[in-house]
Amino acid sequence: MSTFGQAFKVTTFGESHCKSVGCIVDGCPPGLKLTEADIQVQLDRRRPGQSNLTTPRSETDTVTIQSGTELSYTLGTPICMFVPNKDQKPHDYSETDFFPRPSHADWTYLQKYGIKASSGGGRSSARETIGRVAAGAIAEKYLKAHGVEIVAFVSAVGPVRLDFLDDISGDNGKILSDLINTVTRDQVDKNITRCPVDSASEKMAEEILKRKEEKNSIGGIVTCVIRNCPVGLGEPCFDKLEAKLAHAMLSIPATKGFEFGSGFQGTKLSGSEHNDPFVSDGKGGLKTIKNHSGGIQGGISNGEHIYFNVAFKPAATISIGQESSKYDGSSGVLEARGRHDPCVLPRAVPIVESMAALVIMDALMIQNSRALSNSRLPPIPENLRAINPLGQKVKLT
Amino acid sequence: MSTFGQAFKVTTFGESHCKSVGCIVDGCPPGLKLTEADIQVQLDRRRPGQSNLTTPRSETDTVTIQSGTELSYTLGTPICMFVPNKDQKPHDYSETDFFPRPSHADWTYLQKYGIKASSGGGRSSARETIGRVAAGAIAEKYLKAHGVEIVAFVSAVGPVRLDFLDDISGDNGKILSDLINTVTRDQVDKNITRCPVDSASEKMAEEILKRKEEKNSIGGIVTCVIRNCPVGLGEPCFDKLEAKLAHAMLSIPATKGFEFGSGFQGTKLSGSEHNDPFVSDGKGGLKTIKNHSGGIQGGISNGEHIYFNVAFKPAATISIGQESSKYDGSSGVLEARGRHDPCVLPRAVPIVESMAALVIMDALMIQNSRALSNSRLPPIPENLRAINPLGQKVKLT
Amino acid sequence: MSTFGQAFKVTTFGESHCKSVGCIVDGCPPGLKLTEADIQVQLDRRRPGQSNLTTPRSETDTVTIQSGTELSYTLGTPICMFVPNKDQKPHDYSETDFFPRPSHADWTYLQKYGIKASSGGGRSSARETIGRVAAGAIAEKYLKAHGVEIVAFVSAVGPVRLDFLDDISGDNGKILSDLINTVTRDQVDKNITRCPVDSASEKMAEEILKRKEEKNSIGGIVTCVIRNCPVGLGEPCFDKLEAKLAHAMLSIPATKGFEFGSGFQGTKLSGSEHNDPFVSDGKGGLKTIKNHSGGIQGGISNGEHIYFNVAFKPAATISIGQESSKYDGSSGVLEARGRHDPCVLPRAVPIVESMAALVIMDALMIQNSRALSNSRLPPIPENLRAINPLGQKVKLT
Amino acid sequence: MSTFGQAFKVTTFGESHCKSVGCIVDGCPPGLKLTEADIQVQLDRRRPGQSNLTTPRSETDTVTIQSGTELSYTLGTPICMFVPNKDQKPHDYSETDFFPRPSHADWTYLQKYGIKASSGGGRSSARETIGRVAAGAIAEKYLKAHGVEIVAFVSAVGPVRLDFLDDISGDNGKILSDLINTVTRDQVDKNITRCPVDSASEKMAEEILKRKEEKNSIGGIVTCVIRNCPVGLGEPCFDKLEAKLAHAMLSIPATKGFEFGSGFQGTKLSGSEHNDPFVSDGKGGLKTIKNHSGGIQGGISNGEHIYFNVAFKPAATISIGQESSKYDGSSGVLEARGRHDPCVLPRAVPIVESMAALVIMDALMIQNSRALSNSRLPPIPENLRAINPLGQKVKLT
Repeated sequence: MSTFGQAFKVTTFGESHCKSVGCIVDGCPPGLKLTEADIQVQLDRRRPGQSNLTTPRSETDTVTIQSGTELSYTLGTPICMFVPNKDQKPHDYSETDFFPRPSHADWTYLQKYGIKASSGGGRSSARETIGRVAAGAIAEKYLKAHGVEIVAFVSAVGPVRLDFLDDISGDNGKILSDLINTVTRDQVDKNITRCPVDSASEKMAEEILKRKEEKNSIGGIVTCVIRNCPVGLGEPCFDKLEAKLAHAMLSIPATKGFEFGSGFQGTKLSGSEHNDPFVSDGKGGLKTIKNHSGGIQGGISNGEHIYFNVAFKPAATISIGQESSKYDGSSGVLEARGRHDPCVLPRAVPIVESMAALVIMDALMIQNSRALSNSRLPPIPENLRAINPLGQKVKLT
Repeated sequence: MSTFGQAFKVTTFGESHCKSVGCIVDGCPPGLKLTEADIQVQLDRRRPGQSNLTTPRSETDTVTIQSGTELSYTLGTPICMFVPNKDQKPHDYSETDFFPRPSHADWTYLQKYGIKASSGGGRSSARETIGRVAAGAIAEKYLKAHGVEIVAFVSAVGPVRLDFLDDISGDNGKILSDLINTVTRDQVDKNITRCPVDSASEKMAEEILKRKEEKNSIGGIVTCVIRNCPVGLGEPCFDKLEAKLAHAMLSIPATKGFEFGSGFQGTKLSGSEHNDPFVSDGKGGLKTIKNHSGGIQGGISNGEHIYFNVAFKPAATISIGQESSKYDGSSGVLEARGRHDPCVLPRAVPIVESMAALVIMDALMIQNSRALSNSRLPPIPENLRAINPLGQKVKLT
Repeated sequence: MSTFGQAFKVTTFGESHCKSVGCIVDGCPPGLKLTEADIQVQLDRRRPGQSNLTTPRSETDTVTIQSGTELSYTLGTPICMFVPNKDQKPHDYSETDFFPRPSHADWTYLQKYGIKASSGGGRSSARETIGRVAAGAIAEKYLKAHGVEIVAFVSAVGPVRLDFLDDISGDNGKILSDLINTVTRDQVDKNITRCPVDSASEKMAEEILKRKEEKNSIGGIVTCVIRNCPVGLGEPCFDKLEAKLAHAMLSIPATKGFEFGSGFQGTKLSGSEHNDPFVSDGKGGLKTIKNHSGGIQGGISNGEHIYFNVAFKPAATISIGQESSKYDGSSGVLEARGRHDPCVLPRAVPIVESMAALVIMDALMIQNSRALSNSRLPPIPENLRAINPLGQKVKLT
Repeated sequence: MSTFGQAFKVTTFGESHCKSVGCIVDGCPPGLKLTEADIQVQLDRRRPGQSNLTTPRSETDTVTIQSGTELSYTLGTPICMFVPNKDQKPHDYSETDFFPRPSHADWTYLQKYGIKASSGGGRSSARETIGRVAAGAIAEKYLKAHGVEIVAFVSAVGPVRLDFLDDISGDNGKILSDLINTVTRDQVDKNITRCPVDSASEKMAEEILKRKEEKNSIGGIVTCVIRNCPVGLGEPCFDKLEAKLAHAMLSIPATKGFEFGSGFQGTKLSGSEHNDPFVSDGKGGLKTIKNHSGGIQGGISNGEHIYFNVAFKPAATISIGQESSKYDGSSGVLEARGRHDPCVLPRAVPIVESMAALVIMDALMIQNSRALSNSRLPPIPENLRAINPLGQKVKLT
């Protein structure tokens, strides 16, 4: 349904043409400094009309906090956030309304609910993601206090792909590793494609503009890294951290796949190639020297950078005529009206970051419950080395 | 945590060396004919020792139903299922116990819980999946009454890959499509690799045996198809059907990625190439002629075959000596003892099927709630074409 | 937290002095005719300023539906509802702010969250119940289509009590039974106390006015009946229908107790006195002739009228000076400012009804899932009388 | 359904005549010392055959821990506990099987599920509570490490009632207060009625024996106190601590009502009588001098003793002939066979304690999440007195 998270719960609402869209965030830690400005920055990165690569439709998407804060501090109570829809009027009939749009949600919504919003995508519209981004911005604000950094970027647009997507060995692995270690949102935002590799970005922009001229669309891939993730997050066996990330990412409209760490490429390797040996981190703990695990082992974060790829299909809304069936079964040619994104990838970047923040925030709060509950128990005796190999009270983070 | 599902809820328990493993299934529809034999068949496909490609450890994994049925019918009450662990004794100390195993869950479990099971993988052991498979078998039994068929098979072992994994266009697309339309469990099981394509299966078996001789391991991919899935399943916007499938699959130990329909390859296509036009199904409804959507549009099943790939890394347990750090930070060479699977893929097949069954079953029961609730309302007036384009009461499935 | 329900989920937001209060209803059946007028009627019964028995503060509490409907029909998507707070400004400091108000939530909120809203009750304010009433009105609209009637009324104000509260035998039982069978909202609303028994109502009004003059407050009891509740609702063993009702009622501010059917009085009876024998209902089913069970047996509705009592303490906010400690531990006399309800009972009536509607609606949708899932299985063989004593397919409602 | 709790989750299974009953506890803090002996003690207090006041059926109810511990420490993984049913065989037909037992769950289970267990109460049997008591014992073991004490006792059997149940003012209030402050399980268990007041206990025993001789049964009340409950537990606005307690108590078979603190009697008081003024606790905090609030204000524990009453109806199973309808609508006289408890109250005591422990444990773990999450934020500035009236960092417990 429309709620995500167990401890840090987000419930979104809103269709493409209703009065407003937004969300309620329940379970936010009290005492967090928070104003609308903290949230608006990611909404601005998500909104349409930022460049000639996106839909020309202009919306300001200005958020207000309705509840849950006072004097700029969170009260620990539900935070309702609100963005008005400028265009609320369900549209007039036209020929196109008799067609369920191919690869859109028109047909399945009608089958599932027996009713569907009359225009735009209704609840399957990208406007639904406004609530996610607003909630994610709160999670990020909290996580920054722990040093967590989340940066996503476009790594492929159609056939234009950063090399590591197809081969993580050798030099490509090095490039991937460098990006994961250092990439910043500033670097990502300096290119309108949100690909921080200039040479690739130029080709991506060309690809997008070509598709735009064709009245067509194109897919691509977003890569995301989470740095300084606290150790110990993720709830086996069903809510492993990668499972929650996969769930979150595949809930974003237009996504087709998720892989983390070595991902699908890792299937080609042998165990001795793929395994991540441990070394001392010099601070009493361990770290890994490779990171094929993508920062997650056994479903639990290990302190290394978490990185993953998310596949997006080409936007289903295109202006080229498409031969397809009407609702009544008769066939015709659908000539879509209106404006659309030829490529959703640049705007998907803050959405991926937001969903990542929601997953990490929720997992952190759940682990905080365990950690504090455990810390109030007497230490496990040192001689029980079998279950306590460090021979000491492990201080849960 | 250890519960999966909202309406059809599965809670698993058990570590590698405790007294027993199993699960409670809560929310099973009452009146389903069910005996242990229905469950044992999938447990037998999952258990070790089925061929020389898997671990030689022999366990019978015999299940008993403890509660929730009478005279072979489900009562609608919690069904507890139970498989004893033959070897319950936590092992003696040895040198290897001072090492967290690379790419295993030893280190992260210790960090998360401050304590870990002394031997085997504890809760991260593959034995945890017994509860999933037992529960999945019940879901499948119910779903078969609706005609749902779920078949998974091995499509890649290391570098040996069925061609469609790298290219879904042209002939490869045809081969993929044929497999998806027709593959049966009998065809899958006739090869010990559980790859139904004989020529590929032979090469896969060679690859696995080579890795076994090397005391190494190898990864691979499982492809799964769900046929005759009811229309309308999946709960936007966060519990889209693909999001729940991704969550389920990434919760299986050793998984690294998930893609459905056109998946990562779909990112390279334009919208006009990728979109699935509708045609009349001749029965008053619509169907698609391509199926790049993989049976899911807008997060909701559309009646076409659902298909997806799941990436598995090479098993982390290998017998080759590995230079790695001990818990105390000192380095050494870990020479792992014991027997292990050189390749988890053949045994992963029923696990993937089981998790798929749990997702579909849960989504079906949630949609059943909506469908019956809706059916008790008066029809929407025919003239409200905007939200009811079929101009009639849509009978929710 | 702030979400109630599993299938029909309500998430409320809002403090006493933030920008707005309201809720999101997720999981509402699609195709329900719904406009703001359906909701406003119950909000009007809840709002302050309805008579000289309630707080003179005047608020219109006008609701708008922000999402989830189109052309006056629900889409099956989240319905966000919104009521602006007229007075949003956190107040200026005053002497009273140094006191946590006795029997209020000031102290516990501060202990729990480390921060608290500066004025009014924050989240513990009665304004929080606006979201509940708005959501309950939607549930009621749906339930009315099934013939469900929910009517609550005031049965006690301080020492003025309808007799059946203290003795359900003989004539008192008859009076209770008559009220339960026939009382309507119109009858309830014709008295400003919302007690439909005129003689008692007059004494209650006197009691309230006396307390108002004293700058004091007084408690009381609301009795509620649910007529025509579908059979089979409630989810043993933890979510029995009475358990959910108790949860719902005790979540209303100022409540102290809940009893259903024979309630606390039933503890005095013997089994032979208390048991409800069955008789044929003349339609192929059974009914009970007494109803000490209060319409619920084994945690499941049996089709008889469900009735229960909810105890409300006297409002904690009073204007009489109270000797109490300040936050800093020094003692003083708190002279509360402002206006308050001398008795919350009349305004509690629609809140009790709303929470009852939410419980029944959620339970109905959960049972609908089971019923439709079961109906798709073949019937249980007739000869299995042990588990199927009717010897036939039981048609789940 | 059969899961209780969010952070400390208990899922029970088992009918009266299946192979075993028990539960899975998920989310237990790791590192808790735990053996079967910790659990058996409460199961022994719950089991039948303890005195001539309870059913003569003898069952040992011996528990084994199947998973989740090693070397007597919890691993933080699911703990499955298991009690075999000695008598597993569904019974032979007899005349009584054609009757749904009055005020039992036979009829409603059949209506809800379309099928019912053939003998005993199936899932509505008191044997279901074994899993609750086993889980509650773990919660209690953890809570004891925090000094929490939970003691329940029988305060009424039929007409024999401790005086404070009808009047909490004056001397009765003093007696209640003394009991709440000091009563121990040893004191409770020294009387077979589990009423610690000797004079009343004798009369209760007489009442029970009288009803036993009559082949009848009798109801009563359990009073429970929770001492040293941490401050800050309970999750407004829907999961207030009293709401969760009410939910838990009303989920116990045969319960009819719940009241906490002043309860239903509090409805008769004025605000100035009822309010609990604060005084300094001499340790930098505040306490209340009366405790009409029953340890909970605004839905949140305030550190005072939590106390509440739970009403139990007379057991529905009696051996006196009852005129009632058969399943087929024909009437007859049901002459119940077998042995039964004439009064469930003595055995209900550990069940009430267990459910109380589950509620407090779950609430504590949820608050621990908030507290640790908050503690990692910078303090709120001292000058924001409006929302931070203590002018300092509040250290959440």
